[in-house]
Amino acid sequence: MKTIHLIGIGAGNPEHLTLEAVRVLNTVDVFFLLEKDGVGKDALLDVRRSILEKHATAKPWRVVTSSTPARDREAANYEAAVKDWRDKRSEGIHAMIANEMADGEIGAFLVWGDPNLYDGMIDSLLQIQAEDPNLGMDFTVIPGITCIQALTAAHRIPLNRIGESITITTGRLLEDMDPAEVTNAVVMLDAKRTYRGFAETGHTIYWGAYLGTSNQILARGPVGDVSAQIDQALDNGRQRNGWIMDTYILRSNAEPGDKKGH
Amino acid sequence: MKTIHLIGIGAGNPEHLTLEAVRVLNTVDVFFLLEKDGVGKDALLDVRRSILEKHATAKPWRVVTSSTPARDREAANYEAAVKDWRDKRSEGIHAMIANEMADGEIGAFLVWGDPNLYDGMIDSLLQIQAEDPNLGMDFTVIPGITCIQALTAAHRIPLNRIGESITITTGRLLEDMDPAEVTNAVVMLDAKRTYRGFAETGHTIYWGAYLGTSNQILARGPVGDVSAQIDQALDNGRQRNGWIMDTYILRSNAEPGDKKGH
Repeated sequence: MKTIHLIGIGAGNPEHLTLEAVRVLNTVDVFFLLEKDGVGKDALLDVRRSILEKHATAKPWRVVTSSTPARDREAANYEAAVKDWRDKRSEGIHAMIANEMADGEIGAFLVWGDPNLYDGMIDSLLQIQAEDPNLGMDFTVIPGITCIQALTAAHRIPLNRIGESITITTGRLLEDMDPAEVTNAVVMLDAKRTYRGFAETGHTIYWGAYLGTSNQILARGPVGDVSAQIDQALDNGRQRNGWIMDTYILRSNAEPGDKKGH
Repeated sequence: MKTIHLIGIGAGNPEHLTLEAVRVLNTVDVFFLLEKDGVGKDALLDVRRSILEKHATAKPWRVVTSSTPARDREAANYEAAVKDWRDKRSEGIHAMIANEMADGEIGAFLVWGDPNLYDGMIDSLLQIQAEDPNLGMDFTVIPGITCIQALTAAHRIPLNRIGESITITTGRLLEDMDPAEVTNAVVMLDAKRTYRGFAETGHTIYWGAYLGTSNQILARGPVGDVSAQIDQALDNGRQRNGWIMDTYILRSNAEPGDKKGH
């Protein structure tokens, strides 16, 4: 039997680790660190290594790193491109579990935020279990604080007003939404700066990048007033650090009750 | 100056406390515990007291409890009833901060889950700050693991499939939604068992109650197949424990790509 833990480690603030995550870190024999393709990977690997060095102190452990395949970001069919990329990544993960773990050992993947959100590791492990029952692998999921939670804590705002729904979405889906239907939208993975389309739709934006880290940047206000400031922060951050991850909430200025929350 | 921390303590599993929450707990002079109206309040107070006794060990602290006013659950206008209830609660909180904290002290409220989600404490403190600047109160928000995250971890499922949005909503809003528009709905606060309306709409439900606690109950499957089992679990739980809190995800069986994720 091989046991894998998918451990949510939070969005960048090492103090967002849960007590459960720390306890489980201390049971692990082998940590699998997947390098993200592209820039910033060294910094992101360093954060995870420093979490291990600080918190996994109860027993010896080893690290196995693997580079994840590059994803085709120009592909016409987004779902198919992501699925193809995830399939390739799953093959690599399968090989690591098969080759780098002895029977009876405990392995772990450190996942940014929570494994439940735009990650894909849960699906990969389910697929590996289904395709190769002889591997004898089982896994658990340890939740972690997401960048959404780091954003609302930093801005000291709730996700919604009384009785309203919240939609968590991506830049590419937001692009096709009717602004009149957007009451509380949490937007992740927006490479296209889709917030610009909300400059005159009566929305306030609560924006953040490098959330929970010492580089954290925040901006908030009517979209039309702050969108140039956000553009600038994205340009500067990318130039200075080689990468930037941002998250934001768009909130309709319509008072609750003006229409159905959605 | 009076400092307040709104500390998200997770949904019931004491191990879901973050390292940040534990550090901040150890700086607090006075913990304000709000008793929920109605049944189950003793059990819920006990969980919070035991967190304090276990983790707030660095210095002496005191507890101030206050009962929150009962909410009118039969009111025709839901938003107005909740707003009225929150206003009354804010008055009580204002009085506690004014009367039970000395200048320079640190106070804290322990919030179930994360203060960003269906809670209202952030709005209360912002309102108190605005209305009474002479109080000299400022506050921070410490994120916590929500019941949604406990649910997806327990079921080992992601919130969504590739490229899809997620809607977090309430039973009363779900009731008015077109099932064809429901791809991934996370439902909280559903007193009316609204999932029953999805028995023949091609949705799978991932359900849980008392999430993260030793009483945790899970169910999953096509809604039509498991809705009687969930009804039964709700009845039994309420009878045995006097209260029950459940959360669920409704996921459309349509394959991603069949329609726009929403």
